[in-house]
Amino acid sequence: MFGPVPCRLPGGIKTCILRPVACVFTSSSRMAKSKFEYVRNFETDDTCLKNCYIVVRLDGRNFHKFAEQHNFMKPNDDRALGLMTCSARSVMEDLDDIIISYGQSDEFSFVFKRTSNWFKRRASKLMTHVASQFSSSYVFYWRDYFRDQPLLYPPGFDGRVVLYPTNRNLRDYLSWRQADCHVNNLYNTVFWTLVQKGGLTTTQAEDRLKGTLAADKNEILFSEFDINYNKEPLVHRKGTTLIWEKLEETVTKSVKLPNEAGEEVLVTRTRRRVGAHHCDVIGNQFWEEHPNILEDDNC
Amino acid sequence: MFGPVPCRLPGGIKTCILRPVACVFTSSSRMAKSKFEYVRNFETDDTCLKNCYIVVRLDGRNFHKFAEQHNFMKPNDDRALGLMTCSARSVMEDLDDIIISYGQSDEFSFVFKRTSNWFKRRASKLMTHVASQFSSSYVFYWRDYFRDQPLLYPPGFDGRVVLYPTNRNLRDYLSWRQADCHVNNLYNTVFWTLVQKGGLTTTQAEDRLKGTLAADKNEILFSEFDINYNKEPLVHRKGTTLIWEKLEETVTKSVKLPNEAGEEVLVTRTRRRVGAHHCDVIGNQFWEEHPNILEDDNC
Amino acid sequence: MFGPVPCRLPGGIKTCILRPVACVFTSSSRMAKSKFEYVRNFETDDTCLKNCYIVVRLDGRNFHKFAEQHNFMKPNDDRALGLMTCSARSVMEDLDDIIISYGQSDEFSFVFKRTSNWFKRRASKLMTHVASQFSSSYVFYWRDYFRDQPLLYPPGFDGRVVLYPTNRNLRDYLSWRQADCHVNNLYNTVFWTLVQKGGLTTTQAEDRLKGTLAADKNEILFSEFDINYNKEPLVHRKGTTLIWEKLEETVTKSVKLPNEAGEEVLVTRTRRRVGAHHCDVIGNQFWEEHPNILEDDNC
Amino acid sequence: MFGPVPCRLPGGIKTCILRPVACVFTSSSRMAKSKFEYVRNFETDDTCLKNCYIVVRLDGRNFHKFAEQHNFMKPNDDRALGLMTCSARSVMEDLDDIIISYGQSDEFSFVFKRTSNWFKRRASKLMTHVASQFSSSYVFYWRDYFRDQPLLYPPGFDGRVVLYPTNRNLRDYLSWRQADCHVNNLYNTVFWTLVQKGGLTTTQAEDRLKGTLAADKNEILFSEFDINYNKEPLVHRKGTTLIWEKLEETVTKSVKLPNEAGEEVLVTRTRRRVGAHHCDVIGNQFWEEHPNILEDDNC
Repeated sequence: MFGPVPCRLPGGIKTCILRPVACVFTSSSRMAKSKFEYVRNFETDDTCLKNCYIVVRLDGRNFHKFAEQHNFMKPNDDRALGLMTCSARSVMEDLDDIIISYGQSDEFSFVFKRTSNWFKRRASKLMTHVASQFSSSYVFYWRDYFRDQPLLYPPGFDGRVVLYPTNRNLRDYLSWRQADCHVNNLYNTVFWTLVQKGGLTTTQAEDRLKGTLAADKNEILFSEFDINYNKEPLVHRKGTTLIWEKLEETVTKSVKLPNEAGEEVLVTRTRRRVGAHHCDVIGNQFWEEHPNILEDDNC
Repeated sequence: MFGPVPCRLPGGIKTCILRPVACVFTSSSRMAKSKFEYVRNFETDDTCLKNCYIVVRLDGRNFHKFAEQHNFMKPNDDRALGLMTCSARSVMEDLDDIIISYGQSDEFSFVFKRTSNWFKRRASKLMTHVASQFSSSYVFYWRDYFRDQPLLYPPGFDGRVVLYPTNRNLRDYLSWRQADCHVNNLYNTVFWTLVQKGGLTTTQAEDRLKGTLAADKNEILFSEFDINYNKEPLVHRKGTTLIWEKLEETVTKSVKLPNEAGEEVLVTRTRRRVGAHHCDVIGNQFWEEHPNILEDDNC
Repeated sequence: MFGPVPCRLPGGIKTCILRPVACVFTSSSRMAKSKFEYVRNFETDDTCLKNCYIVVRLDGRNFHKFAEQHNFMKPNDDRALGLMTCSARSVMEDLDDIIISYGQSDEFSFVFKRTSNWFKRRASKLMTHVASQFSSSYVFYWRDYFRDQPLLYPPGFDGRVVLYPTNRNLRDYLSWRQADCHVNNLYNTVFWTLVQKGGLTTTQAEDRLKGTLAADKNEILFSEFDINYNKEPLVHRKGTTLIWEKLEETVTKSVKLPNEAGEEVLVTRTRRRVGAHHCDVIGNQFWEEHPNILEDDNC
Repeated sequence: MFGPVPCRLPGGIKTCILRPVACVFTSSSRMAKSKFEYVRNFETDDTCLKNCYIVVRLDGRNFHKFAEQHNFMKPNDDRALGLMTCSARSVMEDLDDIIISYGQSDEFSFVFKRTSNWFKRRASKLMTHVASQFSSSYVFYWRDYFRDQPLLYPPGFDGRVVLYPTNRNLRDYLSWRQADCHVNNLYNTVFWTLVQKGGLTTTQAEDRLKGTLAADKNEILFSEFDINYNKEPLVHRKGTTLIWEKLEETVTKSVKLPNEAGEEVLVTRTRRRVGAHHCDVIGNQFWEEHPNILEDDNC
């Protein structure tokens, strides 16, 4: 009755005894429906303020434990980062009002253009849709990134919506996340180098790093392990920025003019696709190179 | 650099040229961090009003098309219904402040107890977590329900939060959804019977049903196809209600008292698990049989 | 140009030079209007959750200073309390969906019935209207209460909206305010008795009361000043509760039947009016005596 | 007990019978207080999004009737306009984060600077305070403007809060209100001229104006009544804009240097005051002349 295949989760199914009661809806479904329908009006409006950038940020739930159980490499697991980016790309391609997204570690931020009218700018719809699409993609694409590591259980992400009124505020938001990426990655790189190459216990490594500044950490890496932090992979130091890019494609197309034989012609067409970047988004260069991401404050 | 495995989705990866610029965070990450951190304060509070039931409802996005592409059976596909229920169960077992959930077709509603303090009652966290956990479970458990039908792409669900101040309002909400289930299922049952057994086209079936009342539809089923609608499967007519149930288990446990030989004893323990019901939730009987689901309005 | 009477407030008036520019609205007011009208959509919906009591509470702004400047008597000024009540009554008579209001000191709370649809339950409209009507009434009726004390400047009140889902919550809100009234009034009564009758300075009185419990304060009043706190005026100890009351009036009405001489008859009619009470609202008695104030949770 | 002076409003006062019940707060006010204090947590946060202009707009309630009852002159009453401006000035001088305010007819808009932190940007506090201060000022200053017309009852204003993210949006808001002023004033000017000078009934005047454009209305005024609309008073055509102005004052101050006789010196000091303008705020000129009103979008 409940479905042909038992659920893997434990739990029971109980069928109520069919009571010989006349169905309350037999006489008039319309009337019955309207009697309860008043409850619709308890839903409140959560439209996002117009002309603001809408940022949806997702964070992995209990990903520390999830990473342990799925044998993520330390300090960075390129498979996990690749899967996060792939899932974010799936979200962007589904919602083309997202103009830029930025991810690092187990978080990803999606920025809707300030004039977007997706879902009538309803915050709940925007964030649940992003959370849902990202999560189903994460499981769907898991095997492409973790060939030898099965997924043990469905992971969870939670989300939030934040509005930014100006370009400056939005850029500062992205800078904040990238600064966070830098600070965490530098710490993690030194920490795990001390453990993996220096032979320290995790407690010893923690103590060693207490109170150190960025310069101290760079120095430990360089003088003790011959590692130049600035040559570490950009994806780890800068995170991943996804933007829409125009691509010129030259394709062969067969054209048939009236009263003529068919002919093959070369046609150039422009296609949009999501491109990934691992570069600084704090300075001006990135924004000067991609002037179309942000809309002017005063338009 | 971007991950060892190419993403199945189309799109390119571009690495920015490393500029010989002194890293802005080298000297003092702490300072740099705080400069941008003001953007945190743009996040607004969305705490749900206390002492109200919090309902999160999910709806499948473009599930009409999804059902077509995955060959769902008409009017009801038990595999799809089973997978929905299994995903909902996964959400409930993850969030034990959900006291009841109700699903039908491609929707599922989750009710948090009125005194819940999960995520400090922050609406965004509650709804994104439910949407995320449900969606990742849907993909994760797909194969258990659709053995011969591969999942073609990651599906999406969107969600919303609605608050209900009283037991009456909450029960009316669930009644509303079950009334909706009844109305739709009766329509779909007659519609697809006319098409599948009566040989009508979908347009003809639509025309036939225009303006008919529930009694008319029951009559068509009975007199023309010898189908008693009230004997159709309960899961289709009533949807699925998930609640927590107490289960008494008797297990054998080896006990070793001090200065004595080990002994095997029978121990009865109570375990909570999610149970599925396919019964009427509009009348009083269900609520009388499960008096602990709702908390009193005046406590 | 700016009005025939100069404003009492300091400040200047400057008339811009009329520029010989063609009025932008001459050709088509409709078009010009719609160009800017998009800004309407920035207004967000702040509808109060249905089936909850809506409480608007007003508090005097800088009333400590206001009381000093207008020579309020200590610890309670009956003129000031009377004016507050009169202003609250003016609000209630203007908005008949207010079922009860409660005031003490420089604050007043107004409770809208849970099913009210005033201003479509828009929080901003409800609270600004209450704040406005109360404030203009306070100035308008000032002279009726303060005959010999002119009002020196227009006072301000600020407000807030709070929702309560159940009767229990609402009663606890009112109990909270009345408990606050009691605690403050007991303190102020002892404090000003120590100063006015005991000859202490305000600092000495403050020190004397530091750490004392209610029983200690009662004891000081009784043993040192022969004052039984429980015999202090109810309006000071319990605050003021305003509710709607039905009043039977017998009036003489002249009736003229067709083809008959006029006749005088006695007619009894029911009128609603706002009645003031100074009694306990924490216990059950008040609510049992006025069973029609609250609507049942489950209706 | 209830105050020495009876309230002018009808209504009764009833004193409850003092019951011989031990006061629930006698033993421990602290405990009693905390039992109910949980109700505080039902208040929800309504902080305005940062870096947006906060606009509070007030509108007179039932001012059509109020104007009738207080014999306002048609189409514009300069006493009423002066009182509105005077009340707005009182609000601005009380809340110095208001950078500009604009009024016409029975409405006034107040703009808080985008970086304001008044009342922690809580919408409810901002709008109720403005509504309250405006309303009490309106009554307080009434006699200064309406010498021979007594105020018959306390008037009400309702308010709302709207946020604008950019300078463009804010200017468009003010333009919208001024365009509204123009459209209404042109209509009212022609309408009342037709009635007062043309001898039409109000119904005839209404019919006459049905479907006319701005140009038609200008033409009626000019050709039939020899009135050039563009020479009508600016305060009627443009409304009133209040801004802060710096004023240089030269005052005589007595200075006493050590070991010297006192001396009188001239001191120039800068004072801020609210200045009223009746000019176009739609074009750029006003904003170029007052570059300090708006803060840059990108700071």
